[in-house]
Amino acid sequence: MKDTIKFVLDESRIPRYWYNIVADLPSPPPPVLHPGTMKPVGPGDLAPIFPMSLIAQEVTAEREVEIPGPVRDIYRQWRPTALFRARRLEQALETPARIYYKYEGVSPAGSHKPNTAVAQAYYNREAGVKRIATETGAGQWGSSLAFAGALFGIEVQVFMVRVSYDQKPYRRALMEAYGARCVPSPSTETQSGRAVLAKDARHPGSLGIAISEAVEVAASREDTKYALGSVLNHVLLHQTVIGQEALAQFDLAGDYPDVIVGCTGGGSNFAGIVFPFLGAQLRGGRKVRVVAIEPAACPSLTRGKYAYDFGDTAHLTPLAKMHTLGSTFTPPGFHAGGLRYHGMAPLVSHVKELGLIEAGAREQTKCFEAGVRFARAEGIVPAPEANHAVLGAIDEALRCREEGVSRAILFNLCGHGHFDMQAYIDYFAGKLTDQQYDEAELAMALAGLPSVRAA
Amino acid sequence: MKDTIKFVLDESRIPRYWYNIVADLPSPPPPVLHPGTMKPVGPGDLAPIFPMSLIAQEVTAEREVEIPGPVRDIYRQWRPTALFRARRLEQALETPARIYYKYEGVSPAGSHKPNTAVAQAYYNREAGVKRIATETGAGQWGSSLAFAGALFGIEVQVFMVRVSYDQKPYRRALMEAYGARCVPSPSTETQSGRAVLAKDARHPGSLGIAISEAVEVAASREDTKYALGSVLNHVLLHQTVIGQEALAQFDLAGDYPDVIVGCTGGGSNFAGIVFPFLGAQLRGGRKVRVVAIEPAACPSLTRGKYAYDFGDTAHLTPLAKMHTLGSTFTPPGFHAGGLRYHGMAPLVSHVKELGLIEAGAREQTKCFEAGVRFARAEGIVPAPEANHAVLGAIDEALRCREEGVSRAILFNLCGHGHFDMQAYIDYFAGKLTDQQYDEAELAMALAGLPSVRAA
Repeated sequence: MKDTIKFVLDESRIPRYWYNIVADLPSPPPPVLHPGTMKPVGPGDLAPIFPMSLIAQEVTAEREVEIPGPVRDIYRQWRPTALFRARRLEQALETPARIYYKYEGVSPAGSHKPNTAVAQAYYNREAGVKRIATETGAGQWGSSLAFAGALFGIEVQVFMVRVSYDQKPYRRALMEAYGARCVPSPSTETQSGRAVLAKDARHPGSLGIAISEAVEVAASREDTKYALGSVLNHVLLHQTVIGQEALAQFDLAGDYPDVIVGCTGGGSNFAGIVFPFLGAQLRGGRKVRVVAIEPAACPSLTRGKYAYDFGDTAHLTPLAKMHTLGSTFTPPGFHAGGLRYHGMAPLVSHVKELGLIEAGAREQTKCFEAGVRFARAEGIVPAPEANHAVLGAIDEALRCREEGVSRAILFNLCGHGHFDMQAYIDYFAGKLTDQQYDEAELAMALAGLPSVRAA
Repeated sequence: MKDTIKFVLDESRIPRYWYNIVADLPSPPPPVLHPGTMKPVGPGDLAPIFPMSLIAQEVTAEREVEIPGPVRDIYRQWRPTALFRARRLEQALETPARIYYKYEGVSPAGSHKPNTAVAQAYYNREAGVKRIATETGAGQWGSSLAFAGALFGIEVQVFMVRVSYDQKPYRRALMEAYGARCVPSPSTETQSGRAVLAKDARHPGSLGIAISEAVEVAASREDTKYALGSVLNHVLLHQTVIGQEALAQFDLAGDYPDVIVGCTGGGSNFAGIVFPFLGAQLRGGRKVRVVAIEPAACPSLTRGKYAYDFGDTAHLTPLAKMHTLGSTFTPPGFHAGGLRYHGMAPLVSHVKELGLIEAGAREQTKCFEAGVRFARAEGIVPAPEANHAVLGAIDEALRCREEGVSRAILFNLCGHGHFDMQAYIDYFAGKLTDQQYDEAELAMALAGLPSVRAA
């Protein structure tokens, strides 16, 4: 049919391996350090909170990690996801650009997160784990792990950042529909939570605090482990099914992206779509421009320091070298809750330092404007997080129009906004503002970085 | 791969024709009557509110109606939808039954409704229509027409039943994201609405009242037409893409349904999946048992009269012979708002009278229990309407277990519940009750039927 808009692969084309970019990088990422000794952590240090199979994936340098059969079996429900050509958006923008998007919102939980949630739940069940504690920002991750837990008979407890917990009651209900227990963070259930509440009983919470709470619960119980929805190497690894499928779909389309745009919070959906293309480039394939778009109110890649820092606020995690705003930094309560994290995935940070990607920051009202524009052309209402990628792609397409050049633009539409409609209600009512972080707080958080103090 | 769970067709298999069951029925359905003359209405009577092309589809006896290219082009975004084998649900139920579901929630608006919304918007645009007025119950239809209107540059005004308008702010926000205007019904914008409000300023609304308001707006403006999301022949016709695809997918599966379960409100998703199978049976193919499941609180098929009645409360529509609770009947405000309609599609009613289908009614708490059971096994949270079909299918599967028989059960999962999570929140909080209609009000509404008065 003329003007193909949907590139589909059958289930035999679900990738058989996750792709590990470490194997193709000119230098390995800096090691994760123990905060006491400042020496690289070993598997034993992580064993209280992760099953050994995931620790092995965290440190492997192998290019390919086989996807277990039971995980692929579940992927089949929604994978391969379609790659769409956004022809109606192109027309609306009057751009010569060829805009493509990979749509991950068709998973049961509505985002890319089940790609890793299912894998993590599988490995935990294999290790005999009965309960997983985790954190969630906007709720995309928490609901995905709740879904995966239901499939593998694992109890899931989710610490949900309080500002999102209050903004998104439907997302909480989704977790409960899957059978998970969801509590607002900071909570009274952990020492970390109680410490924060003692200072500020109305604290809005942050991903850093919620991580502390979940890690504390996991570390204190024998049958309980911890799971993270982004940032870590093994999480990024699991997401590479997205980019691998996209590579095959561009073959079908007889095209190749000139530029790839992804939104970045912890970095997992970005790495998922980008790393397989960067890998192809690093192995001698075609060069692709890559742009990470982050929220201006939480700009780790564009305003953070590349330094060793804790992954959480209570400093229960090891130290990772990453672009960070400082683990004590609390971002303002904007609507893209999934991007409200002080740090960036160490691997994404490393790739940025190697000059393989660019980064930009955008204000939230412009992102929602782009999301509505996209919805009216393509019919899909994006998640607030995904709106950053939509805006980045639209900006690139408009540049094509100005320059009179047709480029192929690919972005990852990492999730739909069905559970985030309060943000759209606020946007339509003119209640959304472009929130600013506190410059003094940022300066203090950066000054307090462990590597800065150590220097 | 072993144990296939997803049966997929490529886009070349999107049906090229809508299927019209009238061509295969042993007798035609009774004609629609003009309430003044009690004579069959002609195309001219309907011309003020529908474009002529849709009026022609309403009365055609042709078996196949060609789907226009631009409509198929848009269908390609989400069609063919997948047919799933619910193996995880089968395991959870410990049933020998083979449970299949066709999942229509992958459309941009999240239900089967865009199948007809896109077609109706297309024909209206071809006829030069600038604005469409419509009603919506739960919001599935209103948001689908809003989506279709955005694609074809048609302004959409939606009268949303007030009880749903209050229960489902996210659904309203979705319509606004697509650019439609949504007002609660009864409203002060029409004579019909004002008349209802004069009697009861806090009236919860009903589909019958909202239809009156939309028809009134359409009839009073030259450039404005009306669109209905269910009940009418041409709407049911457009939905037959569902069943036609399912027939091809059962070929792929090497199986055939012994029983098909659908939920019924106006009848369109039910007809969409069922009619192509009934047509095959009527043309000498295999017999299939068909079960319609309706809400016990609005039981037109099981408690209504098969009689001529108005389609709306203010009596602006022609008379159609259907199973009806009486056009003055106001159903209780239960959560499956899309099923809160006093009548059943005349074609579905006729097929019921011909003995081709069965019907049953279910209470809402049992439906939500089934929906949660389904979500924990299959990952998809169904719309409250779809929960009726889920419960019907689970009941059939449990009967298979009791009898020790494996039957193939097919149901239409007509939409997801992402915009209906307040209903799940109420269900988990124990706040949902099995609402009863008022028996005296039903008796009065049935006694007031125009055909009863005429007799």
